[in-house]
Amino acid sequence: MDAQTDTRQRIIDAACQLFHQRSYTLVGVKQICDLAQVQKGSFYHFFPSKQDLVLAVVDAFAQNTRDQVFAQAFDGRLPPMHRIERLVELLFVWNRQEAADAGKVLGCPFGNLALEMSTTDEPLRVHLSHVFAEAETIIATSLSEAVGRGDIAPLDCKATATAMMAYLEGLVLMAKTRNEPEMIHHLGTAIRGIRIENA
Amino acid sequence: MDAQTDTRQRIIDAACQLFHQRSYTLVGVKQICDLAQVQKGSFYHFFPSKQDLVLAVVDAFAQNTRDQVFAQAFDGRLPPMHRIERLVELLFVWNRQEAADAGKVLGCPFGNLALEMSTTDEPLRVHLSHVFAEAETIIATSLSEAVGRGDIAPLDCKATATAMMAYLEGLVLMAKTRNEPEMIHHLGTAIRGIRIENA
Repeated sequence: MDAQTDTRQRIIDAACQLFHQRSYTLVGVKQICDLAQVQKGSFYHFFPSKQDLVLAVVDAFAQNTRDQVFAQAFDGRLPPMHRIERLVELLFVWNRQEAADAGKVLGCPFGNLALEMSTTDEPLRVHLSHVFAEAETIIATSLSEAVGRGDIAPLDCKATATAMMAYLEGLVLMAKTRNEPEMIHHLGTAIRGIRIENA
Repeated sequence: MDAQTDTRQRIIDAACQLFHQRSYTLVGVKQICDLAQVQKGSFYHFFPSKQDLVLAVVDAFAQNTRDQVFAQAFDGRLPPMHRIERLVELLFVWNRQEAADAGKVLGCPFGNLALEMSTTDEPLRVHLSHVFAEAETIIATSLSEAVGRGDIAPLDCKATATAMMAYLEGLVLMAKTRNEPEMIHHLGTAIRGIRIENA
């Protein structure tokens, strides 16, 4: 990694950590620069504004979620509905680990930013809705495979995938509000009952 | 209403509106005072800090939700599961109306504050978790009644009520991120399929 890439990455890593532990608005550029050990001039060279940075932060979180959660859950060797159950379980393990490290459930970085910023930062809202759409497509593909194998009765795969994503986001929201990561585990199994019928 | 009560209420009303349209952190005391047409000294007389104010704002939102949503949905003359479906529909109508007025889905005031502030404001997090708990108790009571009437198979009413609340919060989160209030209506029916079995 060359020095330029390294500096840019350090800024993104620091912002991921700080935004996730606190919030987007509560964290200032100075705090990010201090943690990343870069000068403010260098920060603004890579990111003209905090708004530019947050889009890169979402991309970094999305890549991490693809690698650490979705790639493991959506293992083609598992029966398709087991993949969805494994997704819930991995989200639980992740949130429990973060709570152990940070002393608090930090929640979903996408959900957090969506509720904090959707009314005031339109590019960020649109970017987050694309991240959700990508996850929904992966879930919908497994639902479609489960229907094809006769594991579940036919349903509207796309709409059910969105409903399942909503349930996951809601579970993580409740777990963060209660500061109880175990809620994701205890209530997660109900995801199987969520069905939107074909029109 | 005496002048003191009126001033305090104007501050709360202004803060409800501004926090809900933007976020808690993005709104300053000056902006609240301007909208409420009160002096800063008067603000600090009633609320030593913005943190004191936000607890009163949550109480005001909770009272409004009780009166405008729960009292209408949980009408004892309706069959118990219909009350839960009516809750979903009222949340849809509310979010659609706010989107029509503000040009954007504003989402759930409790969910918004919970994801923005739970890691940095412990009294607010605890207060919000009590608001959710009150709503869950109302849902659990209807589930218990539905089980008693034989409308649904026995289940863990308390846990299912929490799971249903999670689903509602998640639906509103997705609707806000997509800026599509109709999602709450289209996906809301799946709430009936959410079940946590008795241990």
